[in-house]
Amino acid sequence: MSSIFTKIIKGEIPCYKIAETEKFIAFLDIQPLKMGHTLIVPKTETDYIFDISDSDLAEMIVFSKTIANAIKMAIPCKRIGVAVLGLEVPHAHIHLLPLESEADLRFSNPRLKLTNEQYQDIANKISSNLD
Amino acid sequence: MSSIFTKIIKGEIPCYKIAETEKFIAFLDIQPLKMGHTLIVPKTETDYIFDISDSDLAEMIVFSKTIANAIKMAIPCKRIGVAVLGLEVPHAHIHLLPLESEADLRFSNPRLKLTNEQYQDIANKISSNLD
Repeated sequence: MSSIFTKIIKGEIPCYKIAETEKFIAFLDIQPLKMGHTLIVPKTETDYIFDISDSDLAEMIVFSKTIANAIKMAIPCKRIGVAVLGLEVPHAHIHLLPLESEADLRFSNPRLKLTNEQYQDIANKISSNLD
Repeated sequence: MSSIFTKIIKGEIPCYKIAETEKFIAFLDIQPLKMGHTLIVPKTETDYIFDISDSDLAEMIVFSKTIANAIKMAIPCKRIGVAVLGLEVPHAHIHLLPLESEADLRFSNPRLKLTNEQYQDIANKISSNLD
């Protein structure tokens, strides 16, 4: 069965897309810990991040950097934090999170509830910082 | 002033080293959240992870993968989690953490207190899984 991320990649489930390349897609986490919480997902479904090939993993982190820089321009924060847990969705993904404090990177924190307009506005703001 | 990590890299402060390359070093976090909690640090001092050049960042994640695979062989866990916060030491570093649950990646959790022998034993076990 396809992962929820593969369904998003195929367009079967909508997302607030920020950018995509041939190999990767970046979209907003629908249960964000912070405004601008973004997921970086490879289009090929691999469960565990460290099972991704060296070259794809390298490309994935460089793509993440591009997106992180765009998030940082859009969302006031000290810096963009990075997390990979991989215990829920069996499709590797990197969380990018605007951080003000260490406590912002706590996955048990309550999730924000945003309107469709708010999600779309954030996604647009972030995308507009990409070349 | 040199960061604490630069002092470790220069050998001015001891560490439980797992591996190093020309550009990166891996050693145990001295205040581990979990047994096997490891830091991946570039030898060149850059504060923010996403200020590292694309090519060095790519190398850093591939080096992290090698170390993560060695940790996973040494420490029973579901998978190795990844975190970058960067709010304390102004020298970019990647945390690699053996995870059993999402709660293991919570930086407010109490830190383990290990003896020198325990640290050294873990570092040796992890290193022995590297070629």
